[in-house]
Amino acid sequence: MRHLITIDDLSDVEIQNLFYVTRSLKSGETEYYSRVLNDSSYLRNKILANLFYEPSTRTSSSFAAAMHRLGGNVISINDVNYSSVAKGENLQDTIRTMGYYSDIIVLRSQNEGDAKLAAEVSEVPIINAGDGKGEHPTQTLLDLYTIQEKFKTIENLTVTFVGDVVNGRTVHSLSKALKRCNLNYCETYDIDKLPPSDVYYLTRVQRERGSKGSYELTRDHVAEMPDNCIVMHPFPRNEEIPQWFDSDPRASYFRQMENGLYIRMGILVSYK
Amino acid sequence: MRHLITIDDLSDVEIQNLFYVTRSLKSGETEYYSRVLNDSSYLRNKILANLFYEPSTRTSSSFAAAMHRLGGNVISINDVNYSSVAKGENLQDTIRTMGYYSDIIVLRSQNEGDAKLAAEVSEVPIINAGDGKGEHPTQTLLDLYTIQEKFKTIENLTVTFVGDVVNGRTVHSLSKALKRCNLNYCETYDIDKLPPSDVYYLTRVQRERGSKGSYELTRDHVAEMPDNCIVMHPFPRNEEIPQWFDSDPRASYFRQMENGLYIRMGILVSYK
Amino acid sequence: MRHLITIDDLSDVEIQNLFYVTRSLKSGETEYYSRVLNDSSYLRNKILANLFYEPSTRTSSSFAAAMHRLGGNVISINDVNYSSVAKGENLQDTIRTMGYYSDIIVLRSQNEGDAKLAAEVSEVPIINAGDGKGEHPTQTLLDLYTIQEKFKTIENLTVTFVGDVVNGRTVHSLSKALKRCNLNYCETYDIDKLPPSDVYYLTRVQRERGSKGSYELTRDHVAEMPDNCIVMHPFPRNEEIPQWFDSDPRASYFRQMENGLYIRMGILVSYK
Repeated sequence: MRHLITIDDLSDVEIQNLFYVTRSLKSGETEYYSRVLNDSSYLRNKILANLFYEPSTRTSSSFAAAMHRLGGNVISINDVNYSSVAKGENLQDTIRTMGYYSDIIVLRSQNEGDAKLAAEVSEVPIINAGDGKGEHPTQTLLDLYTIQEKFKTIENLTVTFVGDVVNGRTVHSLSKALKRCNLNYCETYDIDKLPPSDVYYLTRVQRERGSKGSYELTRDHVAEMPDNCIVMHPFPRNEEIPQWFDSDPRASYFRQMENGLYIRMGILVSYK
Repeated sequence: MRHLITIDDLSDVEIQNLFYVTRSLKSGETEYYSRVLNDSSYLRNKILANLFYEPSTRTSSSFAAAMHRLGGNVISINDVNYSSVAKGENLQDTIRTMGYYSDIIVLRSQNEGDAKLAAEVSEVPIINAGDGKGEHPTQTLLDLYTIQEKFKTIENLTVTFVGDVVNGRTVHSLSKALKRCNLNYCETYDIDKLPPSDVYYLTRVQRERGSKGSYELTRDHVAEMPDNCIVMHPFPRNEEIPQWFDSDPRASYFRQMENGLYIRMGILVSYK
Repeated sequence: MRHLITIDDLSDVEIQNLFYVTRSLKSGETEYYSRVLNDSSYLRNKILANLFYEPSTRTSSSFAAAMHRLGGNVISINDVNYSSVAKGENLQDTIRTMGYYSDIIVLRSQNEGDAKLAAEVSEVPIINAGDGKGEHPTQTLLDLYTIQEKFKTIENLTVTFVGDVVNGRTVHSLSKALKRCNLNYCETYDIDKLPPSDVYYLTRVQRERGSKGSYELTRDHVAEMPDNCIVMHPFPRNEEIPQWFDSDPRASYFRQMENGLYIRMGILVSYK
């Protein structure tokens, strides 16, 4: 049994293996897909517990959909703060409890380090779905996959981060992964000083984590971007990216969401 | 792909086809039922998203049950206001997101027009489960079905609405449908002036939408009603209908609920 | 059809039959297990409704897991107070409604007597999952099973209750059951005056029910306990039992949780 707490829990080879499974599941054309999905009961009677100490509809729905597509079941605990925990229960007891009632636990927490703490006592695999300012490895994996899907590689690319770089867990995790992957350039910039890049990764100003300031992608910014680049965003978005940009072929944030489903299916397949 | 935003999205013929399927599913006797339900995995690995911006246990449970009876899965998002949306996400982004994680979206909203807005951007079918003072077409369909089940027709009947006629979405939608269906009489009345009718449709005083006043069905009112009429109510009820009336053969509000399950199964079957 | 409102709804023979099924499901070795679980669709397309008027992650998750392991589906209504009920609906109407959308209802309520009230109007079986200061029979059954699993009998044992004996529903229900089961000794004690016992049953100080005071198991207390005893707790725990005791072979509270799954599977099997 293995946990997925940080992107560093996976070697480069394991990441590429996961991407191979993900691509197979997404294309639906390979023998692998036929064997796993056409069976449609690959994870029948298996249970995934979505244990969310802060709400994240996107992430919890994505894991739930991945589990259901593979024939499995989901127990969603989206109101943890109002349940047993409110009676004084600590994280470890909740994790050990849910380990009796599920085969894998997806944990979202407000406190950095909670996922690691959970893994230390859990008898089933823990998937970190974001622990405060810590990591969110499945987001990082779907980001990497989206980049590789476009450029056929994740090496020798230029990635520019825009926005709330200091507070952003997403940026923090992805930068860490990108450095490992031999990207030769990886920096963060002001929206008005966009350098030529393969990838522009915009992030939301996280007011709930104490950030100030905001920015908005304009037609002028877009005009400066290379034709072959992609523009990413982890969503939800505020005003950073206006809706008129959605139909631009460089807009890749909805593809990120779609890939999120297949990455998570790939992860669940590998945990069977 | 088609959406179900208003009852007018369905032609008279389509409504009768839906009622045929509904009757088959409910009776369990027909060849159609055998083929669809005995298979019991008709919608296996399919996902319905219950996206509720205001709570409605009855409606969300009814859709969930319909999906499960057909072998499918459900992702319930009952706390939308406290999830991603609270981070500033607009309806369109939420709909596009959930379109990647589900095959059909059931949307309940507080704002009239939201279902139409959702349909404009959605890549999967949207079923309107009530948009503020707008429509609630599956409620209208189960109401119509309950009337037709009793009288074998929905033409040439007299329907009397009682209660919060101005504020009621249910009354608004059903009247609209009834007019289309050639009912020759359709009016709204004070509880103390009940005319002879085939159907008495009582509604709840919706205090949360600003209504005042209340009323209660008494033994005197009931004594004036024809033996062959039916008394309907969309539930939840307050004091409008006392519990002693539940055992009266004319009380049809629990049959409405039961029919709600089969109507929604019929709708899901037709969207496969 | 039968309801499970109080432990007294089951005869001694029925309890032993349930324990036989539970043991078979847990061991996974018997013919019974093969027939029921390897089929893995024993309850396919069946629906369990988790109707919780107060949150209890542990209990609702345990029932959900039991249902999923048997191939069935779950509709979770964990926010009842904010749903239809907030519009003025009484318990009876909610129960009758959910009876159309499910095959069995698990009810958790804050008011003693609610489960009995529900059973009087329900057209599907009601399982009482705790009604205020009333009963919680599946907790009692998993407690009894955990005792019998250890000592091969539930007769002629000494059980000592510690903690919030007056306010505790758990203690109340279990004592009642123990008296029926011919335990020759069953008393409640101060943590500092532990008599020799086979079972020490510690309970949480229920501040939300108005209790005061607290206690903590110390190494001195533990040193006085017999080697062959077991220490139980219904969880969640506060400071009553420190984590260092978890690895003691006498600590049996996690086994209680595990048994909770199999007891509830056993109950669902018997209701098919």
